[in-house]
Amino acid sequence: MTSSESILRGDRLALARLLTKVENDSPDGRATLIELFPHTGKAHLIGVTGAPGTGKSSLVNQLALHYRKAEDKRVAIVAVDPSSPFTGGAVLGDRVRMRDLSGDPNVFIRSMASRGSLGGLAQATANVVQVFDAAGFDIVIVETVGAGQSEVDIARLAHTTLVVEAPGLGDDIQAIKAGILEIADILVVNKADRPGVENTEKSLKSMLELAHPTTRVFKHHGTYMSMSMPESNQNANLWIPPIQKTVSTEGKGIPELVAAIARHVQHLRSSGDWTLRERTRLEVELEALIRDSLMTKFREDISSQQYEETLEKVIQRNISPWEAVRMLLNGRLK
Amino acid sequence: MTSSESILRGDRLALARLLTKVENDSPDGRATLIELFPHTGKAHLIGVTGAPGTGKSSLVNQLALHYRKAEDKRVAIVAVDPSSPFTGGAVLGDRVRMRDLSGDPNVFIRSMASRGSLGGLAQATANVVQVFDAAGFDIVIVETVGAGQSEVDIARLAHTTLVVEAPGLGDDIQAIKAGILEIADILVVNKADRPGVENTEKSLKSMLELAHPTTRVFKHHGTYMSMSMPESNQNANLWIPPIQKTVSTEGKGIPELVAAIARHVQHLRSSGDWTLRERTRLEVELEALIRDSLMTKFREDISSQQYEETLEKVIQRNISPWEAVRMLLNGRLK
Repeated sequence: MTSSESILRGDRLALARLLTKVENDSPDGRATLIELFPHTGKAHLIGVTGAPGTGKSSLVNQLALHYRKAEDKRVAIVAVDPSSPFTGGAVLGDRVRMRDLSGDPNVFIRSMASRGSLGGLAQATANVVQVFDAAGFDIVIVETVGAGQSEVDIARLAHTTLVVEAPGLGDDIQAIKAGILEIADILVVNKADRPGVENTEKSLKSMLELAHPTTRVFKHHGTYMSMSMPESNQNANLWIPPIQKTVSTEGKGIPELVAAIARHVQHLRSSGDWTLRERTRLEVELEALIRDSLMTKFREDISSQQYEETLEKVIQRNISPWEAVRMLLNGRLK
Repeated sequence: MTSSESILRGDRLALARLLTKVENDSPDGRATLIELFPHTGKAHLIGVTGAPGTGKSSLVNQLALHYRKAEDKRVAIVAVDPSSPFTGGAVLGDRVRMRDLSGDPNVFIRSMASRGSLGGLAQATANVVQVFDAAGFDIVIVETVGAGQSEVDIARLAHTTLVVEAPGLGDDIQAIKAGILEIADILVVNKADRPGVENTEKSLKSMLELAHPTTRVFKHHGTYMSMSMPESNQNANLWIPPIQKTVSTEGKGIPELVAAIARHVQHLRSSGDWTLRERTRLEVELEALIRDSLMTKFREDISSQQYEETLEKVIQRNISPWEAVRMLLNGRLK
């Protein structure tokens, strides 16, 4: 039986082996990815992001548990840690997860740390997600640590992006929200039993109104809800991110969050945004692969001596990097 | 007078105009960059990074003030905000800075938000730093918000990287430190008047010992110092990141921090690491430029119809992205 057949039949050991190959970008792993590609496109990809200290990992655990118990979905978790470029900080988180989720054959957890470049990590994550998709996992949750461009890159992978906040995380938080708000499909205020939760909700509410001028956010049964104002009713397909409160350590607010995610999927399907996001995702992936292939070909074509000599001229400030590129590319085309 | 001559003469208005051109990657800006490149390589590039809430911005302000007043150095600050890909969160920080530093012709502050891709931001930052270097600023401080790969990319730019921590920033902090410790040349515990400062120092200390097994960290006049153990004395060029305590809002610990930075420069010079870092930085930059040029040429060579048709086959899952790349590159080479 080939590797891809084993994966499609749900062989867990074959899956674990393939994930390692795919992460290392081995030729063998690549070949299996190509075989599996026609079987992808079915999973719901959920991105979970937010600043450190918001309790993302336990929230993801609770989401996975809920999808298992209440909906009998198969769930994969990809924990991406771009802040650990050299050592694996994510590994620690895994052990905590294991207590709740281990032993369930319909849950699979994979941690990934950065390997050299963010571009490399985004590509490796995309490939790992494809493997889980082909292997028949209904839900693939991609969780990222930190607050930066990495989130934006990972969010491009997901159908639904959750941005997690928590009360009392310091004074720079406002600045982060401003940027990250625009990738959020659902805003989660976790640790909602902590003091300051009202302030966190209020500031998210006003940022939402700022970002969506035709929106008013109101409180309904203790939760902030958002509603488009009449003048924007012509755009019925507009999605305003709802604010969901959770206490993930106690499982509070998880069913409501899952319901909000389901509403977002309905919105994506009815508005055509699901197809649009799939298209964008594959286009970004294709472009990244083209870039890598062109660079590989360049390295094959140029002599390392020629490259080193040109680099040395740049270091000596004899030529600028731009002139160096022109020389290298011209030399190659002759 | 050409643009590059104006810059070399210290014309502030010409500098501001060039920075805008360089950020927008205009052909005009590129041409001036090429002219200025031989005048670069003199500035000391300091990177400052750390999690949100550590008070990086006020620390950078204090550093700049100290370099102005105590050493009469010309200082440029580049505030990079990768967490604001769409809106400019960094602008707010600028207004706060202005109170302390505005009106001084030997200080220049520039904020940069992400534009589309992290690669683009890193390149734009590198170019802006080059402009300041050529314009004769002695110190160029690059400050980044967040905790992720962006820091690692920005750190590659700097000769000296400061990683800023602060007491009481939540439970995920440990995981961040693990990764970011390896890019730190100097560890700063800011807000050192806050409760919990002892714990922050202790955990940094044990992580340092873990990362440098031949090192013991000890306390000296209220500051944790690190020292290589005898068995590692053969490697005299080893640099162990010192831990510096500061209260940036009150300017406390700033002279000591500046002294530590000066020691690091001495270390870089005597060990040969200064040249090595310059080399690495220019090599990374050259490779990024080659990648961009290859992609631009690819786009010129291929018809958009051919590209769209191939992408559509990927979206329909008829071919995998890897097969698509092979087809596109072969088509182009015929």
